[in-house]
Amino acid sequence: MEKPWSRSEFEAKLREMERFYHIHHEFQQRMDSGQLDRDAIQGWVANRYYYQISIPRKDGAILANCPDREVRRLWIQRLLDHDGRGDDPGGIEAWLRLGEAVGLERGELESECRVLPGVRFAVDAYVNFARQATWQEAVSASLTELFAPTIHRRRLDNWPKHYPWIRPEGYDYFRKRLGEVRRDVQHGLQVTLDLFETRPQQERALEILKFKLDVLWSMLDAMWLAYVEKRPPYSNLS
Amino acid sequence: MEKPWSRSEFEAKLREMERFYHIHHEFQQRMDSGQLDRDAIQGWVANRYYYQISIPRKDGAILANCPDREVRRLWIQRLLDHDGRGDDPGGIEAWLRLGEAVGLERGELESECRVLPGVRFAVDAYVNFARQATWQEAVSASLTELFAPTIHRRRLDNWPKHYPWIRPEGYDYFRKRLGEVRRDVQHGLQVTLDLFETRPQQERALEILKFKLDVLWSMLDAMWLAYVEKRPPYSNLS
Repeated sequence: MEKPWSRSEFEAKLREMERFYHIHHEFQQRMDSGQLDRDAIQGWVANRYYYQISIPRKDGAILANCPDREVRRLWIQRLLDHDGRGDDPGGIEAWLRLGEAVGLERGELESECRVLPGVRFAVDAYVNFARQATWQEAVSASLTELFAPTIHRRRLDNWPKHYPWIRPEGYDYFRKRLGEVRRDVQHGLQVTLDLFETRPQQERALEILKFKLDVLWSMLDAMWLAYVEKRPPYSNLS
Repeated sequence: MEKPWSRSEFEAKLREMERFYHIHHEFQQRMDSGQLDRDAIQGWVANRYYYQISIPRKDGAILANCPDREVRRLWIQRLLDHDGRGDDPGGIEAWLRLGEAVGLERGELESECRVLPGVRFAVDAYVNFARQATWQEAVSASLTELFAPTIHRRRLDNWPKHYPWIRPEGYDYFRKRLGEVRRDVQHGLQVTLDLFETRPQQERALEILKFKLDVLWSMLDAMWLAYVEKRPPYSNLS
């Protein structure tokens, strides 16, 4: 059997997967350079909403599969962040406000009527993976967070100049996540480096990360067809 | 509560869903009119292979959820058709031969290396639906078979003239399915007409059929991007 990678080699391999991150997808690039129309921005917010509301269920699946109390004590923070607690309305509420800031009514997002089938299938694949995999595997799938700070930062920097019609309170979500994601990824990375020790396990972690990168990419493929090429599935036209 | 549709009204509503069938997808239309290159035809066969091998698992989920022996005695035929039994090598074997007839090695199909993420997510959504839904709901999802004879017939009629490089023994699968599907759909339709009796149930059956139509459509969306526009996910390029 091949020798395992050292911790730093393994971390470097994980970070190299950035080349498949959806920051390189043309939909994302057009969004960041101000080339999308209002319909495409709204479509992105409405479809990405489905991802937002699915994340706590994914994290619930990890809690359900994890017998390690120490891990659960840290992991639960993600559910608290997304769903909110007490006075904190949470990330999903912040996303609904982003929806309002781009001109979508709350009820329209919540009805999921704009969610494209391709987006739904990709997001559901992620939730089903977390249900059926080990908790360690599901944790390693979350490591796309390694690459998230740059993408949030770009939105905060570029959108206000390209899309002046978006109301500024919409940006709270990205600001909020920028802090959280840096903390979350430390934990996810630690767990992955600790628990994937043999070379086949390390290779499996890379495969899982690729799966998750494909989920994000596939969501933008569906949005590209529907909102840039204006070729939505016929079932979405009626 | 609204009055249920009569059996014939309900059947007509189900048949009207044909407007969302992937026979109307541009990938399908180009395939049938001889406009696809060899790479796209091979891509379709390799991706559709993933659907073929998932169908018996979907049918296994229906058997697992169905306590009605009479239904199971009929439904099991689908597993026998796809997997084969005794001297009959079955539908998946016929698909592998279609692969060979378009120039793909058996091992290449079996490795699933050409399966696009968007296709995998869509097909897995169907299998997961069958696992988690009631068996009656999963049966109604199979009703896209109502529309399948035309699509198989067209392949048999058009491909030999447009794609003379495909070896003729490749067509056995479509010939085989043409007979089976007519019998299968009678059973699926009977069960759906019998068991979805109230108006909300009937509407639910239409929603489920739409979900399944979206699965098939979404598969072709992914193939369109990868093999017509030549924009596969970056993770498929390496």
